[in-house]
Amino acid sequence: MRPALRPLAIALCAALLAGCASTPTASSSPAAPTKPLTMQEVLDAATPTDWREPDPELTVYLQLANGGRAVIELAPQFAPKHVANIQQLLREGYFDGLAIVRSQDNFVVQWGDPDADDASKARKFKQAAETLPAEFTAPAAGLRFTRMKDVDGWAPEVGFVDGFPAARNPKEGVAWLAHCYGNVGAGRGGAPDSSNGSSLYVVTGQSPRQLDRNITSVGRVIAGMEWLSVLPRGGGPLGFYEKPEQRTGIVGMRLASDLPADQCLPLQVLRTDTATWDKLVEARRNRRDDWYVHPAGHIDLCNVPEPVRMKP
Amino acid sequence: MRPALRPLAIALCAALLAGCASTPTASSSPAAPTKPLTMQEVLDAATPTDWREPDPELTVYLQLANGGRAVIELAPQFAPKHVANIQQLLREGYFDGLAIVRSQDNFVVQWGDPDADDASKARKFKQAAETLPAEFTAPAAGLRFTRMKDVDGWAPEVGFVDGFPAARNPKEGVAWLAHCYGNVGAGRGGAPDSSNGSSLYVVTGQSPRQLDRNITSVGRVIAGMEWLSVLPRGGGPLGFYEKPEQRTGIVGMRLASDLPADQCLPLQVLRTDTATWDKLVEARRNRRDDWYVHPAGHIDLCNVPEPVRMKP
Repeated sequence: MRPALRPLAIALCAALLAGCASTPTASSSPAAPTKPLTMQEVLDAATPTDWREPDPELTVYLQLANGGRAVIELAPQFAPKHVANIQQLLREGYFDGLAIVRSQDNFVVQWGDPDADDASKARKFKQAAETLPAEFTAPAAGLRFTRMKDVDGWAPEVGFVDGFPAARNPKEGVAWLAHCYGNVGAGRGGAPDSSNGSSLYVVTGQSPRQLDRNITSVGRVIAGMEWLSVLPRGGGPLGFYEKPEQRTGIVGMRLASDLPADQCLPLQVLRTDTATWDKLVEARRNRRDDWYVHPAGHIDLCNVPEPVRMKP
Repeated sequence: MRPALRPLAIALCAALLAGCASTPTASSSPAAPTKPLTMQEVLDAATPTDWREPDPELTVYLQLANGGRAVIELAPQFAPKHVANIQQLLREGYFDGLAIVRSQDNFVVQWGDPDADDASKARKFKQAAETLPAEFTAPAAGLRFTRMKDVDGWAPEVGFVDGFPAARNPKEGVAWLAHCYGNVGAGRGGAPDSSNGSSLYVVTGQSPRQLDRNITSVGRVIAGMEWLSVLPRGGGPLGFYEKPEQRTGIVGMRLASDLPADQCLPLQVLRTDTATWDKLVEARRNRRDDWYVHPAGHIDLCNVPEPVRMKP
């Protein structure tokens, strides 16, 4: 028998695909109460209230000059000052005509003003603040933290807050966004308070959790990662592009609330504070697909897929 | 002060760059005995015996039609039958003219015969076996396992064997290759013994460790990952390309021992069974770069960079 070419029946729903959770091996038949569920079965049984629509005031459309588009959800729960400043930057049209300046393999893609370091050429801020206090952690009190039982080497507790992979230290009473694939953060210089959201990066490789608590995370990409993750790697140190023509341009970056409705996508994200969510995590912790012979009994925070769909 | 555009001073040495460990913030001055070292300081202090040259019989050059080239080191310690069959396939020229058939965001890129599922069109094997027994684990006895002290949720013990990220279960006496970024495996169908190395995949996203012990890993990419990781994502289920013209062609795939010397790179890989290696892991576990304000005190197996350089 020839080996099949579709051996890895895993649909990671990071991509913007309504039906992306379908796998060739998953069964769509209703599960008996005692039978462990696959992710597809969990999603098939989800109700409309298991899904949420991101707030248009916190949803950002990043339009690339190559036709690609990514959608970012901001997290004011964790970085209120940075999120407010990014909203201001977007309303000033700050990013329009700027560029992707960096793509480092297995790490990050970063965008902003290529001339930011040259005061004579750098784009000016209007109402936006030039620097902000670091927002590396947030008070844990009041956050809707859905804890995972799985061990994590980087933090005492991990889980999800309003759809964002996060970590928590109960002794210190703080929580923070975790640097998982798709996490968006605000670039900074040597000083912790040197960021303002005008230089943003997104994680495109193995989760660099060492950045947690060292830089301000502001949100995550909920759709269109496949446009950012394939950008050619830069040839300079840290993946910066060496020539201007190697950069991918940014047409514009806008809040959904500032865009005409017909330019927005009717996205829905699976809620992370429901019984359905707990079942989804368990379905991924122990894969029940026929293909698997050795369920792991564990899942890392950054391996949990977060399903996104178009509103039915 | 404007935020600097180079805030993330982390050089992940997965790329083929002799000096890729250099960072703007790392010091190159000799360290005093009591001072913790940065990775750059560890590498600066490394001796020639800290580096090794991969065996040409186990080093594979994958030449893409777009000009890209990746170098794979095979791991017969873990999958002797698959590695021997892959060597046979390469000598038969099996992959020449075939293609990348799949690129799934945050998961894998896979290559082989686009017509493998169509017996009338599928490329024939000559001496190579059509199927092989599963090699999901190997006996741990005799492997040079450099254990990391860091906790891992997927396995009782993790570390490195001859440069390969690996895991071990001492109670069962087995070890296996870990699905980290750059891991190369043999695609299989529903049956565990349905692979033969003619359909290969490489991990291009967050480490899918749930695949560990479920599929046969055969090696890892030691150079050129940046050519594989940026391949456009496929639009079909599981990231398969929907049209033949979307596939990237494979010019050829050869063992270094079968190539003229001037077509090979003088690659050296840092050994993982030395005191230098232990220092490197510690330098990444607690980042000493000036930029970091909160060293993690932990590192995940798949976050440890494995430096590669050109022979000096």
